[in-house]
This record gives sequence, C-alpha cells and structure tokens, in this order.
Amino acid sequence: MTIWLNGRLMPAAEARIDPADRGFTLGDGLFETIRIKDGVPRHLPLHLDRLGAGVGLLRLPLPYGAAELAAAMAALVEATGIADGVLRLTLSRGTGARGVLPPADAEPTLLMTAAPVAHMTTPVTAVIARCTRRNEHSPLSRLKSLNYLDSILARQEAAERGADEALLLNAAGRLAESSVATLFLSIGGRLLTPPLADGALPGIRRALVLERHGAEEAPLGPDDLVRADEVLLTNSLGLRPLVTVDGRPVGAGAAGPVLARLLADADL
Amino acid sequence: MTIWLNGRLMPAAEARIDPADRGFTLGDGLFETIRIKDGVPRHLPLHLDRLGAGVGLLRLPLPYGAAELAAAMAALVEATGIADGVLRLTLSRGTGARGVLPPADAEPTLLMTAAPVAHMTTPVTAVIARCTRRNEHSPLSRLKSLNYLDSILARQEAAERGADEALLLNAAGRLAESSVATLFLSIGGRLLTPPLADGALPGIRRALVLERHGAEEAPLGPDDLVRADEVLLTNSLGLRPLVTVDGRPVGAGAAGPVLARLLADADL
Repeated sequence: MTIWLNGRLMPAAEARIDPADRGFTLGDGLFETIRIKDGVPRHLPLHLDRLGAGVGLLRLPLPYGAAELAAAMAALVEATGIADGVLRLTLSRGTGARGVLPPADAEPTLLMTAAPVAHMTTPVTAVIARCTRRNEHSPLSRLKSLNYLDSILARQEAAERGADEALLLNAAGRLAESSVATLFLSIGGRLLTPPLADGALPGIRRALVLERHGAEEAPLGPDDLVRADEVLLTNSLGLRPLVTVDGRPVGAGAAGPVLARLLADADL
Repeated sequence: MTIWLNGRLMPAAEARIDPADRGFTLGDGLFETIRIKDGVPRHLPLHLDRLGAGVGLLRLPLPYGAAELAAAMAALVEATGIADGVLRLTLSRGTGARGVLPPADAEPTLLMTAAPVAHMTTPVTAVIARCTRRNEHSPLSRLKSLNYLDSILARQEAAERGADEALLLNAAGRLAESSVATLFLSIGGRLLTPPLADGALPGIRRALVLERHGAEEAPLGPDDLVRADEVLLTNSLGLRPLVTVDGRPVGAGAAGPVLARLLADADL
C-alpha cells in the first residue's frame, strides 16, 4: 500500500516514524478521518478548519496550505486507487528531546493513509462505559487529538460486555458521545445532541446535521436514551441507528424515520 | 546514540516505528521514566510493578519478563555509557488496522532510550493551569500512558505565563499534581499529597515518601498552597521546592527543612 509522508508518496513498508517523534512518545498531535467518495475527500474545507483550530490550540506547526493538502490527498487517492473509503491525516509535532514542553523549532510529521472502508448504516448495540469518562474540562475533548486511550478502554469494555460500541458520560454524568461517533436523540419531535461544553467532539457530520436538519444542542442524560424515539450515531463514515443500550431496546429497536431522512440527504 | 528496540540494540538513526503503530496513531501505550544512578536503574521492581498494572488495565501484550527487561536495560546502559541519567521505556500496542478496538493478535513495540540528565533539586515557579484539568474519572490518571497532551498544554501555558511548571486541578477543582511531578504540601507539621482518587499519578517517589517519611494522602485545594509551610515537587528525576504559585511566594519562598530531610534520604 502507498502512503504519503512528509511531502511524498512511498510504500508503507519504507515509511519510518522516528522513535523520538512526540506523536509516538507523548501523543502530541492531531488527526482527521475524511471520507473519500467517488475519488473526492468529502467536506474537506470543514475538516481543514477543524484541523486548523486544533493546530492553533496545541501551537503545532503545519507548513502546508489547504491547496497543498488537497493536492497531496488527490495524489494519494490516485496512487492507491481507493475511490471510496477513508483518508486519515495524522499530524504530530515531530521529534523532540526529553521533556513535556515542546521544542521551539519543532518540525512536524504529516502522514496520510487511505483505506477502502464502506459507509456504515447498520444497527449498533452499545453499553454506557463504566470504566472511564470523557473530560469536558479539557480542550482536548473538542479536538481530534492522538490521545485516544479513553475511547480504546471504553471500546474494550463494550466488546467484553458483548456490545458494538460504548457511550461515554462526562465528569458531570451527562452524555458526551460514543467512542467514535456523535449521539443524536430524537425526543418528542426534536433532534438533540450533547453540547460541546459537555465533552462532545465537534464532528463534521454533527455540524451538518445541526445546520441542515434543525437539530439542537441540549444537555442529555442516560435517562434520555430510554425516552428517545430514535437514537443515531453519526461520524464521517457512518449514519447508524443505536438499537440497544445496556441490553435494553432504544426506541423501536430499529432504524426509524429520522435516520431515513438523514440517509436521503446526499449532502451529508 | 544507541537505543533498544524490540529486542536489540541499534543506532537511533536506524530505528523505525511503523506509521501504523497504534502508539503513534492513537497514543495506545504506556511508558516509564527510570533514573539511572551509578549505572543501575533505581527502584526497578517498583517501576515494573506499575508498568504491569497498566499493562493489565489496557490489556497490552508484554512478551518480556522482569529479568529480560533488566538485562536489556543493563545492555543499553553499557552501550550508551550513560551511568547517571534517565532511561525511558515506551510500550505501545504495535501496529493495527483502522479503528479504535485493538487487534486480538497485537504485537507490541517496546522501546528503551537513555539520556544523560542530572537529578534536579533547583527551585520551581508554577502557575495553576487554567487551560485544562486532570480527569480523575479516568483510570488513565493513574497510569503513565502515552496520552500526555493535557500536561503539554499546561506546560505551554506555564511557559507563556513565565513559570517553570503548571499545577493541574481535577474536575472537582482539587489539586491533582503538576504536569510531570507529585505535589507534597507541608502544613502544620504534616506532609500531605493528593490521593489517587483526585487524579494523582501513583509516582514511585510518591509511594516512597508516603512509606518512609510519614506523608499522608489528603484532598487538597488551591488555598492549601497558600497556607503550606513548604511545597515540594517530586518525581523519579527530582526533589524540588515549589517557591511561587501564580506569582505569589509559597511558604518561605525557598527550600525548607522537609526538602532537606528528603534529600538526605539516600534510598529515595
């Protein structure tokens, strides 16, 4: 498989991350997961805006403009022949000597990989993670950072409890999101999603559903899952109905009319 | 410089981390920072116990026993000639395909590096981080995981505010630790440190000070810094007096008798 690393395409087997890369030693970096459809990265400006916000917050260097990144992605899509799938962009701060404080002259590592992944619409079973919570007091909850261990722990717990996915509560006990997706709850005709202040990642699809489908941000608790008519999990790679939580059916326990409406929106 | 990677010594320039390593893509791993003194890793059994606890919690594979790890460290110390400094052991889950859930057949990456670092006893100025908080609701607060971005953000804030270090509060607003060290407060003749339940990392030196110097765990708030007679920051590489917080002097604003007592303990 071909990948793109620091400015050039190369076979994955020849690509080398330095053992002193702070992405590896400290999780010091960000990523984006971008759907490729018909050979084109979907909603690229929105992904690059979010990446830019993270770069600003972490003070990461990013010596490539939007046009260069788009050209690199096009070259990767062509080289891999993956017209439908996912492109992952990983940006780390690059190598650094010992210590937590970043070096002033950091030279970042920028990696792009592509994989053939189908857009997912199949039902999901979930548990509410008991092992960990999302930290709404950290700005990292609003970035796609390389610090993904809370999500990994939650997903391991879900697998051990026989479910596909894990929902994460925040420190206050409210719903934040799933390990990899935004939560939408349809309750009494309103479509609700946890606010960013409750630890929700500002998902690209989340923003589009808010904008195009009249969804609203609202603090939500585990009890709201029980009274919801329909619960959805969305990310750039899927629009999926959540059908059980902790073994109990959610809504009708199947895909419903809100999901059907979102699936019919070709611009999502 | 020579490093040790997956079973053998090699020049750092030849060592390669795979771009698909989950340590790099997701921060999926752990590390230990071990002081090397007179050519010997200090308190190695305690470090390996903590590593083992993390390995268990994250379900990481670790196909090396204590004797093999000790032999590898001895070989690295000999090859680098670093008799006094620090050894960092980094364990990641190794490569994985896309997705958060770890592969069942993960083959871990184990890296060891050594660097000449002096044991630190110099005074520290600190701020209380405003930008983020430590998540006492996550088990990661009790592991040395590769997810270090909250500490990095806090240290960047400290540097911008003209201080050496950042103290982190937890979600409840209590003191947890600094970006890289345990907090000890001497108040009215008692030596107090935040409990693990408040988000303190179970530091090796922390455990030794608790055991050997009669220190006690107690919930502590920012106000306690003001009334403390002496505040210390400890980790495996230093025993340092905290002399100012947010620009205000702490205790006498200098090293005090508790620090002198700890520095006199050759077994710490």
